[in-house]
Amino acid sequence: MPERMDGGKHAIRGFKAAAVDSGLKKGHDPDMALIVSEAEASAAGVFTANKVKAAPVLLTREHISGGTARAIVANAGNANACTGKPGLADAARTADLVGKALGIPPERVLVASTGVIGQRLDMDKISAAIPRLQTTLAPAGVPMAAQAIMTTDSFPKISSFDGMADNLPYRILGLAKGAGMIMPDMATMLCFILSDIQMAPDALQKILRVATDKTFNRMTVDGDTSTNDMVLLLANGMAGNGPLSSKDRGRFQEGLTGVMEDLARMIAKDGEGATKLVDVVIENAFSAGDALKGARTVANSSLVKTAFYGQDPNWGRVMAALGRADIEMDETLVDIWVDDIQIVSGGLGSGGEAEKRAALVMKQEEFSLRIDLRQGKYRDHMVTSDLTHEYISINADYRT
Amino acid sequence: MPERMDGGKHAIRGFKAAAVDSGLKKGHDPDMALIVSEAEASAAGVFTANKVKAAPVLLTREHISGGTARAIVANAGNANACTGKPGLADAARTADLVGKALGIPPERVLVASTGVIGQRLDMDKISAAIPRLQTTLAPAGVPMAAQAIMTTDSFPKISSFDGMADNLPYRILGLAKGAGMIMPDMATMLCFILSDIQMAPDALQKILRVATDKTFNRMTVDGDTSTNDMVLLLANGMAGNGPLSSKDRGRFQEGLTGVMEDLARMIAKDGEGATKLVDVVIENAFSAGDALKGARTVANSSLVKTAFYGQDPNWGRVMAALGRADIEMDETLVDIWVDDIQIVSGGLGSGGEAEKRAALVMKQEEFSLRIDLRQGKYRDHMVTSDLTHEYISINADYRT
Repeated sequence: MPERMDGGKHAIRGFKAAAVDSGLKKGHDPDMALIVSEAEASAAGVFTANKVKAAPVLLTREHISGGTARAIVANAGNANACTGKPGLADAARTADLVGKALGIPPERVLVASTGVIGQRLDMDKISAAIPRLQTTLAPAGVPMAAQAIMTTDSFPKISSFDGMADNLPYRILGLAKGAGMIMPDMATMLCFILSDIQMAPDALQKILRVATDKTFNRMTVDGDTSTNDMVLLLANGMAGNGPLSSKDRGRFQEGLTGVMEDLARMIAKDGEGATKLVDVVIENAFSAGDALKGARTVANSSLVKTAFYGQDPNWGRVMAALGRADIEMDETLVDIWVDDIQIVSGGLGSGGEAEKRAALVMKQEEFSLRIDLRQGKYRDHMVTSDLTHEYISINADYRT
Repeated sequence: MPERMDGGKHAIRGFKAAAVDSGLKKGHDPDMALIVSEAEASAAGVFTANKVKAAPVLLTREHISGGTARAIVANAGNANACTGKPGLADAARTADLVGKALGIPPERVLVASTGVIGQRLDMDKISAAIPRLQTTLAPAGVPMAAQAIMTTDSFPKISSFDGMADNLPYRILGLAKGAGMIMPDMATMLCFILSDIQMAPDALQKILRVATDKTFNRMTVDGDTSTNDMVLLLANGMAGNGPLSSKDRGRFQEGLTGVMEDLARMIAKDGEGATKLVDVVIENAFSAGDALKGARTVANSSLVKTAFYGQDPNWGRVMAALGRADIEMDETLVDIWVDDIQIVSGGLGSGGEAEKRAALVMKQEEFSLRIDLRQGKYRDHMVTSDLTHEYISINADYRT
């Protein structure tokens, strides 16, 4: 859950940040952010699986391959996606300008963009903003950076974790922007995670991949994958810890996963037009793949998502979604619950009284839809939102 | 396009039909239909790929395996899906009752249902309706049968084709109901096709499969596959033709495909809340599979479908959908047109002027979105509708 936006809780040793209004996004809110690590930081990243990758995704993937980074520069308002070679040059020039301003090699600068697809960046605005960002860098600036990467998210998304490694305290601080986007074409999800833990890039990358699979890859708003999705993790080692025990490493994995789970749920909750946050859980699937495929198919079904909006325990749609999910299933074995109210038993409806009670549960902002397939022992879940009139309004608006 | 509902054009040699208000569907419109062939007819069927299959699907698939049929009985208002063994017994009893009334074996009766999932059929209403259906059977009854299988389709869907085979005239007459459904859980698509051509069941089945793949399997309203989808084709041989030449057979294939294409487009046009009918065409894909997958991913994207509704030539969403379609693609080779207006060339936007003209085209009720991937020589398409406020209203309503 979002915490108070003061500096203390959201500052982290050896990192400074700043945000300014560069003019790239309409209005006068900050729309450009710079995060800098005092020391060379181990860096890990996970990028969109979309074959159409925005210029900053291509550039940052290359820069991060060295395993270290010093800075992240991000803008909202323009995704720099589908902009061809000139767009790639713009992203590279942004890294150059930041590198020069900070006196670091451009390859140590990671670039992220979010906003409209298919338009060139206004490089004059970017180059004018960078000195202003540099001069206002401060340890308390991270919450402002979280504000600056918002497009029309309705709230900034920050979460943190304090842990101990090698008997020394460290912090994980994550910020993200999601799927609250009035301007269509917004290339969606950015997440930056900072830590003062000391860890080698390879280990960091493995841990980030696992946490991403458990969190952001278990969330869906509309089934569309953006061209700009990017999760970056910088660890600057200021905690001073030595090599981690497997217990400490496990604890860091848990802490990171917790921070990213928080952020993922905030993104789903702040999804376009969303009024509900629903955990779709598949239990006792035949295989791990079936568990995920089942959860994903139900969580992405437009008919199921409109039923969430309508607060209707419409289990026929859930059965129909399971039936087309290409998984092992036998309808006569399926049980379904809304939170703890069973609405289907052995493939048959539990009756009107149960449905009435389930409809009451569905009036809540958050609930779970739990499906027991009785095919095996695998479990998975997806976090999803409802599909609402507001989603249509937001996404049907012409881009101008 | 729907033609006038008189008997002449929609009568077909050797078939009679009737429709009555059985009380299964709310209101006083006809909701139960019976179609009878005077002679034993060759029968072919294509059924939902959903693993959750309604009782009438299971029963009819079994009955049709004999290759012949005499009657189709169909009801709206209740899908008899997710009703377990009692539901299967209800479907079988319906066939028994019709068989007794007509003096034919129950295995020659095909049963179809559409309506709410998860509720038992009211067999008293069904058994009371069957004698009334039998006594009102008439050659001119087919249009009424098309009315009776409507749930909340806004118009009945009929199309016909007149051809020559073995120098003798024959007719193909198709009726369908689609995805206009105020009551959620409607198990969606039924299509019955009658012909007086003489053809063996095996040949009929092959031809039906090909036509289904080209028509109903190239149409999407919301990506959900129903538990009750069923296409039945009866050919009673009254045309008196002998074995068909390959040219005559090809012409029958074309005629059948044309009738089913008409019906599929009517269904998409009458899709829930739909205001637009859009042909999504993929050209020059690397493989046939890629062409279909690309068309399907774009045609099912909620973001693309809301852009159709918003009359916004929002090509960034199309590119993003292609990028996650798991097909061979290179964004720098992609060209996109709305009808004949090119909006993307080599992966880059063609500019504001082109988009303005494309937005004008998108004000039409029907247009095409054509994507040239420049990867190979394969082409495919999907017919889709837009995603609208009305879709949400229809599907969020509680079932009562």
